[in-house]
Amino acid sequence: MDLISRVQGREIRAIARALTLVENGDDAFTMALDAAFAELPHPERIGITGPPGSGKSTLTSALVKALRGQDKRVGVVAVDPSSPFSGGALLGDRLRMSEHALDDDVFVRSMASRGRFGGLAIGSEDACDVLALANFDPVIVETVGVGQSEVDIASLADTTVVVLTPSAGDSVQALKAGIMEIAEVVVINKADRDGAERLEEDIKEAMELRPMPPEGQPMWQPPIVRTVATENHGISDLLTAIAQHRTFLTGNKLLSAVRQKRAESRLHDLAGAALLGSLKAGGRAQGLFESLRGRVRAGTMSPRAAVKELLAALSL
Amino acid sequence: MDLISRVQGREIRAIARALTLVENGDDAFTMALDAAFAELPHPERIGITGPPGSGKSTLTSALVKALRGQDKRVGVVAVDPSSPFSGGALLGDRLRMSEHALDDDVFVRSMASRGRFGGLAIGSEDACDVLALANFDPVIVETVGVGQSEVDIASLADTTVVVLTPSAGDSVQALKAGIMEIAEVVVINKADRDGAERLEEDIKEAMELRPMPPEGQPMWQPPIVRTVATENHGISDLLTAIAQHRTFLTGNKLLSAVRQKRAESRLHDLAGAALLGSLKAGGRAQGLFESLRGRVRAGTMSPRAAVKELLAALSL
Repeated sequence: MDLISRVQGREIRAIARALTLVENGDDAFTMALDAAFAELPHPERIGITGPPGSGKSTLTSALVKALRGQDKRVGVVAVDPSSPFSGGALLGDRLRMSEHALDDDVFVRSMASRGRFGGLAIGSEDACDVLALANFDPVIVETVGVGQSEVDIASLADTTVVVLTPSAGDSVQALKAGIMEIAEVVVINKADRDGAERLEEDIKEAMELRPMPPEGQPMWQPPIVRTVATENHGISDLLTAIAQHRTFLTGNKLLSAVRQKRAESRLHDLAGAALLGSLKAGGRAQGLFESLRGRVRAGTMSPRAAVKELLAALSL
Repeated sequence: MDLISRVQGREIRAIARALTLVENGDDAFTMALDAAFAELPHPERIGITGPPGSGKSTLTSALVKALRGQDKRVGVVAVDPSSPFSGGALLGDRLRMSEHALDDDVFVRSMASRGRFGGLAIGSEDACDVLALANFDPVIVETVGVGQSEVDIASLADTTVVVLTPSAGDSVQALKAGIMEIAEVVVINKADRDGAERLEEDIKEAMELRPMPPEGQPMWQPPIVRTVATENHGISDLLTAIAQHRTFLTGNKLLSAVRQKRAESRLHDLAGAALLGSLKAGGRAQGLFESLRGRVRAGTMSPRAAVKELLAALSL
């Protein structure tokens, strides 16, 4: 039986193998996965992001536990962009999730980034598809949230949960404005610490700076949920908030718009990567690109001039 | 007189205007900048990165002060990927650098990310070129360091300084392995806090996991420098460490390799962005791309199948 069918048959080893193949960007398997496009279920996608140290993994683990209590099969993709060179993923994520290690209805996978040009997003999308194919629903995508990875998660998930923590650092404050723009649910984790009150006020203030939705579209007001993930406090409130956002999306017929945008952004990622890939290897412009690259490396031609020549040669 | 000449003439308002134009990706100006490619000086590039809250901006400010003491003209590009949607940059960076606000031989610019596909890297590179053209040397590039932005800064700078802080968070520990791989100098800032000793041990341990350089190439051993940036402690040690790395690069004829790699990665960023840009607007494949995009958005075609059709149509 082929790997796709075995994934659909929920075979744990097949799922693990498939995830390794998509993480490596294996062409044969991604083509096979693509051939199953029409059969792909569309599970709920929950994104969890936040700065390092906010307790995302512990929260995700608690969330998984609660979802298991509702008899749901839960897939988790933990995207770790912190080791771009070695390609290693956070061991900690796996360890903290290990309480679910013997549960066949929970599948957790850490993935490392695969460099620029949508590598992270492409691999994570494929991983979500593998878990969808194996009938996990919801699929949770967890990322360390600073910078680009937030954009990525916002495009990966139906509902994006941003996790913050009371702390003395001014940096978290500074980050909030950006993070707030993608938050559909805000969690104050470690809410038993000093400063939770202050943080909630800051969040509310930052929230007021969020851009208005396009004319005629309803405005979603992100709920703020307090949790202590290590003690399972507030987790059912979090589930309720996520469900409320889903009801908002479906009630206003916005879920399909979210999925359309996701498909489009995936197209852009894949197109950018494929175009550049064909220049680097195998495409008809490979020779030209190599000679331009040589001149750019030698400093005798500017990168922009090289790109202009390239576009002209391809009549693009 | 045109803007390029005025930038070369070190006119403050012209530099500010030029930086705004590159931040906006203004075509006319980037072409003019490109035309001056042969005249571009190659100032020393120092990268400063580290997790939020590590005190990068304060450290950068202290570094600028010390470099001013050596009569150097210092340009700073503070890249802030934390607000991908609004395009706003960290106000804090500017405020903390304001002690240099009246000094014409210091120029500080905060830049926000411009989305995926090398946007951040492209804009930052152009900003560095503008500052080079205005004869600032060194040019310091400061980024919030988690994930992709580290890769970017590693390719932007000759010498990458990673700033860490003693703290209780396990997350910083987890991040270290990835961060260590790009560090040429490691700073323990806020070194008067508890835990500096412990952090230094952890750093040394993480350092041992760094990959070996290619056969025949000398190995650089990143020095660990303790600073208290708010009190200007350790800044001259940091300058010494940066200078040592530079001597290592020039002594081993590695500086040109660093620049070649940077030029190549810039070529890749620009090529990826330009190829995708021509599909989105103006190129001969725009019509095809639009129709494929429509099918992908409607869910009747997979993004990968669309990309395959696109490459075939372009005979790439």
